[in-house]
Amino acid sequence: MTHQPAISILSRDAQQYAALLTQASSDLTLCQVLDTVPADFQCAQTEVLLCDPDLGAKAVRHMPSLRWVQSTWAGVAPLLCEPQPDWQLTGIKGIFGPQMREFVLTYLLYFVRRVEAFQTLQRQSLWAPLRPGILRGKTLGLAGVGDIGRSVAEAASGLGMKVHGLSLRSRDCSTVEQYFSPSEKVAFAASVDYLVGLLPATDATAHLIDADMLAALPPHGVVINAGRASTLDHSALRECLQRGHLAGAVLDVLPSEPLPDDDPLWRTPNCLITQHTAALSHPEEIARIFINNVQKYRDGQPLNYTVDWHNGY
Amino acid sequence: MTHQPAISILSRDAQQYAALLTQASSDLTLCQVLDTVPADFQCAQTEVLLCDPDLGAKAVRHMPSLRWVQSTWAGVAPLLCEPQPDWQLTGIKGIFGPQMREFVLTYLLYFVRRVEAFQTLQRQSLWAPLRPGILRGKTLGLAGVGDIGRSVAEAASGLGMKVHGLSLRSRDCSTVEQYFSPSEKVAFAASVDYLVGLLPATDATAHLIDADMLAALPPHGVVINAGRASTLDHSALRECLQRGHLAGAVLDVLPSEPLPDDDPLWRTPNCLITQHTAALSHPEEIARIFINNVQKYRDGQPLNYTVDWHNGY
Repeated sequence: MTHQPAISILSRDAQQYAALLTQASSDLTLCQVLDTVPADFQCAQTEVLLCDPDLGAKAVRHMPSLRWVQSTWAGVAPLLCEPQPDWQLTGIKGIFGPQMREFVLTYLLYFVRRVEAFQTLQRQSLWAPLRPGILRGKTLGLAGVGDIGRSVAEAASGLGMKVHGLSLRSRDCSTVEQYFSPSEKVAFAASVDYLVGLLPATDATAHLIDADMLAALPPHGVVINAGRASTLDHSALRECLQRGHLAGAVLDVLPSEPLPDDDPLWRTPNCLITQHTAALSHPEEIARIFINNVQKYRDGQPLNYTVDWHNGY
Repeated sequence: MTHQPAISILSRDAQQYAALLTQASSDLTLCQVLDTVPADFQCAQTEVLLCDPDLGAKAVRHMPSLRWVQSTWAGVAPLLCEPQPDWQLTGIKGIFGPQMREFVLTYLLYFVRRVEAFQTLQRQSLWAPLRPGILRGKTLGLAGVGDIGRSVAEAASGLGMKVHGLSLRSRDCSTVEQYFSPSEKVAFAASVDYLVGLLPATDATAHLIDADMLAALPPHGVVINAGRASTLDHSALRECLQRGHLAGAVLDVLPSEPLPDDDPLWRTPNCLITQHTAALSHPEEIARIFINNVQKYRDGQPLNYTVDWHNGY
């Protein structure tokens, strides 16, 4: 008989996950199903944990039998404590790409097609046609070319854009015409029209997108950050936008979330705040990935989307 | 020696065209180069006319030697007088597709990703994440599947959308999963999420997009008209938007242009006016097409992009 691990769920969508798991497989052993972590949390039985990383981070040290943690988010940074524990960590891949490519195109096109300027004319009932720009032929700079970046690269290429990549390791996306390493980041920025940040939060990426990189972008440049907030120097970005060096910026990830209502980023010119909605976890899709991994776990096979603890993604 | 036809130019960009033509070929015989049509206009020599269709329409009957008219626009309706004259008419193809596909994606994404709602939250410095929609898996309805429509269809398909086509004749776009004829237009509208009008102005297309079609669209539907204004019943559209039956509309072409400042379309809820800028004629690209056709004309070869007088495109 196959080994049935005790599974716990710690997530804001815990009840929904429990229903989805029970529906998909009647022989799963659910232990704890919680949407917050109680102060005195302890669970000796749990062997497998499905969790939102910020909730899991508060609980994993109180789960002595833990062998495997499945994150419900793409970003697993909250779980990456030191020293490395003896359980393995798996992430989510393959479901954020289609959302992210539409998010990136939305806001590149918003600036390039001058949507706001047309709306300003409309409020005045003023017929004064403007000449919009075009993405075709422009160069998109992708800082971070993983699973999600590849999807964005392909969509941009489909519209006739060139794609340059800034990458710490992966160089296997054929849509990227030219790769740059972090030490070449200023040359990378100087080679592109638009910069899209999709970097994970690691020591190596902290403030990687800095004043030097931003200064190397062209004045019609647009910066979109949908990776992690720690990868971008927000003071340098604000300074660029205030003196009109860049055409615009879109921040999906913020230094603190919720962004406090007195944070100056809310009122920085041409800076749009999209409130961490670029690519959302849909519990149905996460549950499907988890159930597939549970089957592999039971069968003693390697799990999908394991996180390299040292690289952090 | 090759026959050198006398060429005239009637266009708002006449001087630019004259410079481009002279630059490209030193042996062209330029006759009239005008950016308006004088009241007493006459030109006995002109054999070939490059013109903005509205200007050309005022001049062609005063050009007795005319053999060929090259339009600078995609829409040639102003030139289609009756009875059919003995000169041939050529249009422009191949340069509007890349602009149009970006225009359509801009505004589909604008509504689907809820850009305006995020901006409203931002003006209040209010963190209250909304769940954006996604184009992937939705169905785009293309009313008019010619050269430009094919480019839009391919871009939509690249994002994982299905494409349905309403077409009078052409059925040769492999990206279109299902074709409908004009008599099936209500079923067509009922089968799609978004409707993009790219129809030419002909007798057969007048008010083809009418109240019945609009009523068959879903409440999250968006209508984008970038074909010709005569193909859409604007009163019916306004009525739909006012009672919130549709999520939005984008009108690139208007019943009269410039749109008068007291026209209610300026202030119809969720109706965006883009002032006939979806796909602009760049003189460099038009000149290239014309010069190529001049070579064919001299050599007695069939011209590119000839307009069928009866079909009107």
